[in-house]
Amino acid sequence: MQQRIKDILQQGQVGDRVTVKGWVRTKRELKECTFVNVNDGSTLAGLQVVIPNTVAAATPAIKDLTTGAAAEFSGELVPSPGKNQAIELHAQQIHLWGGADPETYPLQKKRHSFEFLRTIGHLRPRTNTLGAVMRVRNACAMAIHQFFQERGFLWVHTPIITASDCEGAGELFTVTTLDLAQPPKTPEGQIDFSQDFFGRRAYLTVSGQLEAEIMATAFTNVYTFGPTFRAENSNTSRHLAEFWMVEPEMAFCDLMGDMELAEAFLQFVFRYVLDHCPEEMAFFQERIDKSVMATAEQMASQPFARLSYTEAIQVLEKSGRAFEFPVAWGLDLQSEHERYLAEEYCQRPVIVYDYPAAIKAFYMRLNDDGKTVAAMDVLAPKIGEIIGGSQREERFDVLQQRIVSQGLDPAPYWWYLDLRRYGSVPHAGFGLGFERLVQFMTGMDNIRDVIPFPRTPGNAEF
Amino acid sequence: MQQRIKDILQQGQVGDRVTVKGWVRTKRELKECTFVNVNDGSTLAGLQVVIPNTVAAATPAIKDLTTGAAAEFSGELVPSPGKNQAIELHAQQIHLWGGADPETYPLQKKRHSFEFLRTIGHLRPRTNTLGAVMRVRNACAMAIHQFFQERGFLWVHTPIITASDCEGAGELFTVTTLDLAQPPKTPEGQIDFSQDFFGRRAYLTVSGQLEAEIMATAFTNVYTFGPTFRAENSNTSRHLAEFWMVEPEMAFCDLMGDMELAEAFLQFVFRYVLDHCPEEMAFFQERIDKSVMATAEQMASQPFARLSYTEAIQVLEKSGRAFEFPVAWGLDLQSEHERYLAEEYCQRPVIVYDYPAAIKAFYMRLNDDGKTVAAMDVLAPKIGEIIGGSQREERFDVLQQRIVSQGLDPAPYWWYLDLRRYGSVPHAGFGLGFERLVQFMTGMDNIRDVIPFPRTPGNAEF
Repeated sequence: MQQRIKDILQQGQVGDRVTVKGWVRTKRELKECTFVNVNDGSTLAGLQVVIPNTVAAATPAIKDLTTGAAAEFSGELVPSPGKNQAIELHAQQIHLWGGADPETYPLQKKRHSFEFLRTIGHLRPRTNTLGAVMRVRNACAMAIHQFFQERGFLWVHTPIITASDCEGAGELFTVTTLDLAQPPKTPEGQIDFSQDFFGRRAYLTVSGQLEAEIMATAFTNVYTFGPTFRAENSNTSRHLAEFWMVEPEMAFCDLMGDMELAEAFLQFVFRYVLDHCPEEMAFFQERIDKSVMATAEQMASQPFARLSYTEAIQVLEKSGRAFEFPVAWGLDLQSEHERYLAEEYCQRPVIVYDYPAAIKAFYMRLNDDGKTVAAMDVLAPKIGEIIGGSQREERFDVLQQRIVSQGLDPAPYWWYLDLRRYGSVPHAGFGLGFERLVQFMTGMDNIRDVIPFPRTPGNAEF
Repeated sequence: MQQRIKDILQQGQVGDRVTVKGWVRTKRELKECTFVNVNDGSTLAGLQVVIPNTVAAATPAIKDLTTGAAAEFSGELVPSPGKNQAIELHAQQIHLWGGADPETYPLQKKRHSFEFLRTIGHLRPRTNTLGAVMRVRNACAMAIHQFFQERGFLWVHTPIITASDCEGAGELFTVTTLDLAQPPKTPEGQIDFSQDFFGRRAYLTVSGQLEAEIMATAFTNVYTFGPTFRAENSNTSRHLAEFWMVEPEMAFCDLMGDMELAEAFLQFVFRYVLDHCPEEMAFFQERIDKSVMATAEQMASQPFARLSYTEAIQVLEKSGRAFEFPVAWGLDLQSEHERYLAEEYCQRPVIVYDYPAAIKAFYMRLNDDGKTVAAMDVLAPKIGEIIGGSQREERFDVLQQRIVSQGLDPAPYWWYLDLRRYGSVPHAGFGLGFERLVQFMTGMDNIRDVIPFPRTPGNAEF
């Protein structure tokens, strides 16, 4: 395995002989020598390579060391006169692996718009911003695993292909192997999905929650971390058709335990990224959003506020604000309301809990007041809802009634109801949209720029 | 967070006061007291709970503490007279959370067939075998992350929905939001996929490799770990329509480096599971397959053999065996050949490399002999191929020619070709089917029993 630039910059000593392999970011030819900045994706800062004229003269390929070219440099680490690094590489041997014609290579030194970069999704990971995003994304993912594994949670892989539109959480993609030009039909003229691959109609999952509940009633504490899908025709900076979701589910846990876990979880992830990606966070602070460091610090260290939905409505009614959307008990909170609560009233993240039953999903546990459910949302300054969760209805009769009263057919929920028939326990969980977390962490404006290959209406390139 | 039984069994001291929450596995009523074995999914062995008659008399719910019931027990740890555990719980307080009617609860004490358990996928995680499998599965997953993260690899999330049938690796599922009963048609009478969600026909991915190559040319070392799909109508004990795959991809890496990484990787994962899941591995050894421990030890500690494909063919020709399938240079190795090489000739895992170009994918690097490609397969005793990998063709002209000569249209590969146009480097990677790994590790006969919710032809329940 070759030496990585991150390790060389952190641990390299003057006099060390090293070989680095990477891609040229910039080249400057001076009278005495040539400076090349090389990056291998391990870190934001490249390694400065100094090529003496004698070496350059012996290396015909040096003319092809243009931006984007792949090359290998061997030599000795020397003290750097530059102010941004302690060492630089004095190259003695150079090998060009692959050039990048400056006439056509799209990633020249100038800054490019994120819109343009999306059209070259195969090259944009080589830019400073996308590179930093992907390293932070990786750190967030590892923080998530570490948080749950340390607490004895099992990572469970819930299915991507599902036969149930269980949650009614959104528009669904159909998954099929039928010949769409000539699909088999039933005698009534409907598509005959019994002849499809799975013997029934199948979809891409919108959530692994229901299956995670199965696993929690066997392993107590589990979490999913995988792709989920929404076929909504939403062309916004906050929506993806394919995104990753994290969904812990805990048996013997009530709404209070759920809120505590959500708070500890977010604090852990923000602290982890601050500790593991200081260079990237400083870059986002400098280039993308001047408030990311303060926000991350606050998320990592400050206890969250808590308000019941009923209290939240009172706060909003007394605020004297002219909101665009109406405020009244029984109506859902809109983004403007959520942001007021977090940014102005609490001035920190706030968990709102006990929402009206009528505006929440059937599986949320009905409170004793008969009109609210044990649901909770974590609202963060600037972005609003980052986590949504609930205690699940564990009482067979109540659950069955809620399914029916929401106009759903109980039949496909036979196994979900069985969990309440056999060894039922209070249990709770929440969901976190992983890309929204990364967006929040980095300050990136558009969610399409925090996932390697975004899927949105009209876009499935790369 | 409650105390988990695994921790109590490992660290609990006589005299400790504890509360455990879990599901009853067995109950035995004796003259003096009642024994209940409680399991919370943290470990194979349950905790033995002793309920004195005085406590039982004060707990009307005790009659409902039947197999499958969920309950909470508080009391004091006392020395156990039993030979299988050092301590047991002397219960002073009991709370029944949810019963499980013995007349209808499907998981009674007797052993059930795996076929039957698949029909109750929502309950089977509560069995000893499925429980042990899922804990080993989690350990394998964490071993994979740890192996790559320690070596500076980024976890990258490649897309599930893809517009390209790039690899030609198998039958594809179509993903659509079109009204299948009345799909839009082109003037020529074809389905008009330009009106579909993504503006073109979209599929479920069969591999993240091509996108991983994009990421490797920015970050040097990356790996995918996510779901992939095959719409093959294969009803076997080794095929799933939806399964998880691990695909590392390394820039500046040739086939030799690829083989070294694959070997180190498998050794690491097997060692990790032996270290982290001794109880589960002993269970599989005892109940499922008497050879799993020896196999895992061998995988973890013994260097793999290596044979070129040409050597392998010579070995097979000289073996004197009457194979069912013919052996000749240019033909692919069949399972019986792979097993002979690993089990009998090498008597250990073997890596076969440099396969005929004609039987391998277009993206594999053409060797200087003009007739073989830099591909490799890791073959393991008993199961055959566990890993398949290759050095990728990094030369623009050669790759383009290989695409065309395999009858593929180069147009959709514009971005894949671009990787060879701009900063191209030697690079290599491999793929591991995660469920096959878990199957190999545990000795489980059917791959449907090592994934929580298997998807196969005709099956998408739960």
